[in-house]
Amino acid sequence: VRLDTDPYLERYATRVRGMRASEIRALFAVVARPEIVSFAGGAPYTAALDFTAVGDVVTRLIRDHGAEALQYGGGQGRAQLREQLAEIMRYEGVPSHADELVVTIGGQQAIELVASCFLDPGDVVLAEGPTYVGGLGALSRQEAEVRHVPMDADGMQVELLEDRLAEAAADGRRVKLVYTIPNHQNPAGVSLSVPRRRRLAELAEQHDLLILEDNPYGLLDFDGRTWPSLKEMVPDRVVYVGTVSKTFAPGARVGWVAAPTPIRDKLILLSEAAILCPPTLSQMIVESWLATQPWQDQVKRFCEVYEERAEAMLTALATEMPPGVEWTRPQGGFYVWLTVPDGIDTGDLLAKALQHRVAYVPGRGFYAGGGREQLRLSYSFPPPERIREGVARLGELLHQEVELVRAVYGNRPPVPRGDGRHADDGIPSQGG
Amino acid sequence: VRLDTDPYLERYATRVRGMRASEIRALFAVVARPEIVSFAGGAPYTAALDFTAVGDVVTRLIRDHGAEALQYGGGQGRAQLREQLAEIMRYEGVPSHADELVVTIGGQQAIELVASCFLDPGDVVLAEGPTYVGGLGALSRQEAEVRHVPMDADGMQVELLEDRLAEAAADGRRVKLVYTIPNHQNPAGVSLSVPRRRRLAELAEQHDLLILEDNPYGLLDFDGRTWPSLKEMVPDRVVYVGTVSKTFAPGARVGWVAAPTPIRDKLILLSEAAILCPPTLSQMIVESWLATQPWQDQVKRFCEVYEERAEAMLTALATEMPPGVEWTRPQGGFYVWLTVPDGIDTGDLLAKALQHRVAYVPGRGFYAGGGREQLRLSYSFPPPERIREGVARLGELLHQEVELVRAVYGNRPPVPRGDGRHADDGIPSQGG
Repeated sequence: VRLDTDPYLERYATRVRGMRASEIRALFAVVARPEIVSFAGGAPYTAALDFTAVGDVVTRLIRDHGAEALQYGGGQGRAQLREQLAEIMRYEGVPSHADELVVTIGGQQAIELVASCFLDPGDVVLAEGPTYVGGLGALSRQEAEVRHVPMDADGMQVELLEDRLAEAAADGRRVKLVYTIPNHQNPAGVSLSVPRRRRLAELAEQHDLLILEDNPYGLLDFDGRTWPSLKEMVPDRVVYVGTVSKTFAPGARVGWVAAPTPIRDKLILLSEAAILCPPTLSQMIVESWLATQPWQDQVKRFCEVYEERAEAMLTALATEMPPGVEWTRPQGGFYVWLTVPDGIDTGDLLAKALQHRVAYVPGRGFYAGGGREQLRLSYSFPPPERIREGVARLGELLHQEVELVRAVYGNRPPVPRGDGRHADDGIPSQGG
Repeated sequence: VRLDTDPYLERYATRVRGMRASEIRALFAVVARPEIVSFAGGAPYTAALDFTAVGDVVTRLIRDHGAEALQYGGGQGRAQLREQLAEIMRYEGVPSHADELVVTIGGQQAIELVASCFLDPGDVVLAEGPTYVGGLGALSRQEAEVRHVPMDADGMQVELLEDRLAEAAADGRRVKLVYTIPNHQNPAGVSLSVPRRRRLAELAEQHDLLILEDNPYGLLDFDGRTWPSLKEMVPDRVVYVGTVSKTFAPGARVGWVAAPTPIRDKLILLSEAAILCPPTLSQMIVESWLATQPWQDQVKRFCEVYEERAEAMLTALATEMPPGVEWTRPQGGFYVWLTVPDGIDTGDLLAKALQHRVAYVPGRGFYAGGGREQLRLSYSFPPPERIREGVARLGELLHQEVELVRAVYGNRPPVPRGDGRHADDGIPSQGG
């Protein structure tokens, strides 16, 4: 994948205030160079797909159903595809039926539709800190105020979510929505524990909250485990978002949202106003893929690829990082979340990292405010030997930076950490 | 195409107040039956495509560029595709370059993005009366107030647009946007005359208006003529919307918006928040189609098909309709706009029409208020013999209705025509 068209990095860059279009373009031009090891993109390793099989599926589709595949479709998405997507949910243990689904342009459009359906300017949304860049984008499009709930190795600290609810009530603000990625979270690489899921479900009932459960990575658990969904616990309070971007291919842009009937009906109307209908061609390709190919085996193959890469990254981090650097230990998904020592700003550091021929996404992109000492590493795309090389380069740079901070400031941290009340929203150490 | 997934009819039905989901579904179930001749859908005749050529394009694409085609892309859309889409615009005589384009999910997303970018709740938008159902949907999603400008055989009556501007000023309301489909308009089937284009461009300058120029049908002129674009006349005041839905295939959902740089940058951000990126697979299929196939010949082939069908419809209308029925005479595009005699409500009439095994879209769907005596006939999808049969059925029904109205009310119209100040927004007769 060419990183000058990397939507994650692009999105990050446009979120950083003061970064001009010309600077962003210069950055991309550098990142796109082949000598850079990029941990920036959130791109799945599509090369692990069987292209002969994909080619056969598409060729047969055009030959046998060309006129239909190239035509408009309905706003809710194709009935057959919705049956199959509901089956994917059940395969993961999430109760589901085709009627409640709306096919969307990836999970992103699903989030945007829900935000557009429920949020008025100034509404408060609680989300994990850090959280998905694209989720922040969709929420900010509705001018909602995102307040973060800190995480640890067991995901969102739900007891702190209770504090946030109390704070919002004290401010006279309405919390309508809790946005969560409970499984192998982007960017933190951790999952929400079962007791916390239960508590979150209870809180939703008590405080009349809607939960937006975003689950792109649930099937990418390295041990093939599945977690109980929030949708299963409080079905009337959950709008669930899925995607085939990580289990098949993001280039199809096929995602979905599952919602209680009255919400589903509103989401269909909103989606029709936004895109008329999802692409028939993509929908039918995914249908054929799921119907004729062993897609579960493909998912297992993806898991093997990502597990090998995650191990390569974690092993290299343990060897290469200086003391004081901490990181999470993913058991699925695409990401490691890394915290650097006091006095280093990951946004400022990116230019030096590129000189060291390694790229990442600075933490600021994943917060409405905060993340200065964090960064996201994605291991999904580069092969293991490149991962080792890239981590070594980053380690060398951080060793230098730690020395520099020590030389200038001694052992006293140069500035107070964090910025304001979300200062501690970084995820405490699991590694280092 | 199955009409139970017809987005036009679906969209219309959901717009009609008081029509319940169960009734809509019952209606679709009837319309989908093969014995019904449907003039309801706005579906292009995709069967006129060369499927062997499409199949070859797609097969080669997956074989040679599978990993890229199945991967994420940038939010603005692929650079190569934008070059080709800009060339399509220039082929039609519209000045353009790839940089100003953003690839969207059909023209619909382009309209939605522009509406979302510029409109606040309560803003006034001036649009042709009648206008595109999906345009109304996107504008109403922003809670804008649509005020219609009546049309005649030369398109929007721009001198009446001046009245609307004065009215809005008198109401203390801001008109930010004029939405127009100047070429072979949907649903009216007429085009904006050149002098009126010039006057509209002048008014945009004088009143600081932005023009949303929506051009799905410009290349579908039966005589191969092109019209001067508003974008050419006042480039800084026009946001231009295009689509490959009518020149290639709607199932790809590839459209675009061309806008001055500062607007373009905002539209990219909004689109990323909405869909992250347009489908790479669809974009690359369109790229290959345009690069390797004689797409201009395909457009000419489509024009021949639609011209034959338009003639079949116009000839049949002249034979079959009772006195007092009037209709427009399209010279391109997909649609005939028909006005029924006093006392007949086209919404109420639809159930009877289905009993007569013919379907259309009642006029109300194309107005923020009004259209009771109008209906839209689309000739793009059914073959000529089915068109003749369908028009005969509709003619028989209208003969009966005219008789019924006369029997009950005599020669005096039973109720005042229209509803309120847009009463005259129907297009005066060209036929009958």
